[in-house]
Amino acid sequence: MDGPSRHRDQRSEGRSLRKARAGVMNNSTVEPGSHKPAAVKGMRIQKARTQGFCFGVELTYKKALSETAERADVYTMGNIVHNPLIVKELDDKGLRNVDSLADIPEGTLFVRAHGLPPQTIQEAEEKGLRVVDATCPMVTRTQRLAKKLSEEGRSVVILGDPNHPEVKGIAGHAPGAIVMNEWPEDETEIRRARRIAIVSQSTLNGDKFRELVGRIAAMNYEVRVYNTICSDTQGRQKSARELAREVDVMVVIGGAKSANTRHLAELSEAEGAKAHLVENPDELKREWFNGDESVGIATGASTPGFLADDVIDKLLNWFPEAEAVWA
Amino acid sequence: MDGPSRHRDQRSEGRSLRKARAGVMNNSTVEPGSHKPAAVKGMRIQKARTQGFCFGVELTYKKALSETAERADVYTMGNIVHNPLIVKELDDKGLRNVDSLADIPEGTLFVRAHGLPPQTIQEAEEKGLRVVDATCPMVTRTQRLAKKLSEEGRSVVILGDPNHPEVKGIAGHAPGAIVMNEWPEDETEIRRARRIAIVSQSTLNGDKFRELVGRIAAMNYEVRVYNTICSDTQGRQKSARELAREVDVMVVIGGAKSANTRHLAELSEAEGAKAHLVENPDELKREWFNGDESVGIATGASTPGFLADDVIDKLLNWFPEAEAVWA
Repeated sequence: MDGPSRHRDQRSEGRSLRKARAGVMNNSTVEPGSHKPAAVKGMRIQKARTQGFCFGVELTYKKALSETAERADVYTMGNIVHNPLIVKELDDKGLRNVDSLADIPEGTLFVRAHGLPPQTIQEAEEKGLRVVDATCPMVTRTQRLAKKLSEEGRSVVILGDPNHPEVKGIAGHAPGAIVMNEWPEDETEIRRARRIAIVSQSTLNGDKFRELVGRIAAMNYEVRVYNTICSDTQGRQKSARELAREVDVMVVIGGAKSANTRHLAELSEAEGAKAHLVENPDELKREWFNGDESVGIATGASTPGFLADDVIDKLLNWFPEAEAVWA
Repeated sequence: MDGPSRHRDQRSEGRSLRKARAGVMNNSTVEPGSHKPAAVKGMRIQKARTQGFCFGVELTYKKALSETAERADVYTMGNIVHNPLIVKELDDKGLRNVDSLADIPEGTLFVRAHGLPPQTIQEAEEKGLRVVDATCPMVTRTQRLAKKLSEEGRSVVILGDPNHPEVKGIAGHAPGAIVMNEWPEDETEIRRARRIAIVSQSTLNGDKFRELVGRIAAMNYEVRVYNTICSDTQGRQKSARELAREVDVMVVIGGAKSANTRHLAELSEAEGAKAHLVENPDELKREWFNGDESVGIATGASTPGFLADDVIDKLLNWFPEAEAVWA
């Protein structure tokens, strides 16, 4: 099987493990005339606990593989996930990326992980397109919740980036929703809102969630809060945060457009580590490292697991004395 | 009429105004040979916008005056408000302060502004006591809300000081409620809670409300938040905060046990002013001032309005060149 997959991942990990163990051996050799092992020196490398595709990306990716294996006329509006490697692989398999429904003459509309506004899906169906829904199940749940809250007459507030496709899709389910990515300079709209119910983009930064929820709740008598940051994002942020607290430098791997990847870098900096965001090992720069620091590796939800190992391989190549620690 | 009252307040304010205007005249005299007024120098004094008794304290105070005017056997469990001057005045009028129901042989139980747990009121009635409820209407509303939420099977979280009588009274209406005054070291209880509904002590610090609500909401899928900080507290905190941003020193006047007064001092310090908490003008210390700073005056919800003017009088006495600004 070509491209990113569990098998490739395991092979790669095996390779890195061997190198890493050799590294450990180098550093723990007993010095002549001494019974103590030498003090640890040189680079230490550690991966964050949560790695590889999240549940939703895995599902979407598999569905896209099976759809493109069966048909030639499968279209997606925008990249199926925010990772260029995956996008390239599926592009090679014939998944066609278009800007709008008008660009799809006939065939299948593949709804990517981020979801779509219901209006777009309805339009596609009216046009006679076959619709395959590969929206992440967590996002579907938030879309349904936003719809229900809106139908109950609540003012839905979506915490997230108004330009992110997931947020646009959720907003399509709750007409008139307020989208908030940071505290607004003009508070009129949020002050006037009544019966507020808050939901969030699945990949929102947890610190931002806490801040915005606290401020909205302080302004209103009654607010309902639904923490729809997905459990994968929460776990990934937690493990990146814990690791960033321990290390000097964090390498965060993922697509430049990937919201959840960017947040991992932000959280890492907030914990005091220097963070570098790369899409793949080729973007690593040797001058970021002096060979004597501790390095943490975190990956976004749509980053194939083998990329972390490829980054470690590259570091071990530059710094042969480095020690990769497998938690 | 003796003691704190609107009339006393107005008389006192008139007195201060005259002095203050004299102060302004001193500072704005035109220097010989110049057409420009002298630059402002010397102390500037300004009162926060919200002053005097809050709505709830005013009601309780008046009810206590009328009860003690009619009867000799009126008892309160604990001071009726957290201000020693008011307590002294009502003590002189015959309001008897006891620790427990066992100390009341017969007569009237006067339920003070902070309220009481329903169990205590029931016990008093069973004992044959006459019960006069002078609970602040805002607190009564929160008690009823906590009861309803608890009966709906929600985990009620009360943000506030577990030792404050208001919080004890609210907790009595929601058996099993979690009381949280700061983020717990042991998160087990709050992590295990399901269907959380948050209410707060009426005088909670707004910053604390935002922080705790944000953290609780981040930990749970669905949380209902009721901001039961009363509107007087919110307005008082806002006006103290705005003033503290402008001045060097804040004098915050109120009872040492008064939660809302303490929070005004905390917020003032958070805004960068040096804050001094006093119960009355006698506690002012001349060495706190150099005579050339800007001074803000804020008062707690149970602080009689004339005390702010007495503090200003004392400052004008120490620093005759001072200018009192009436916003």
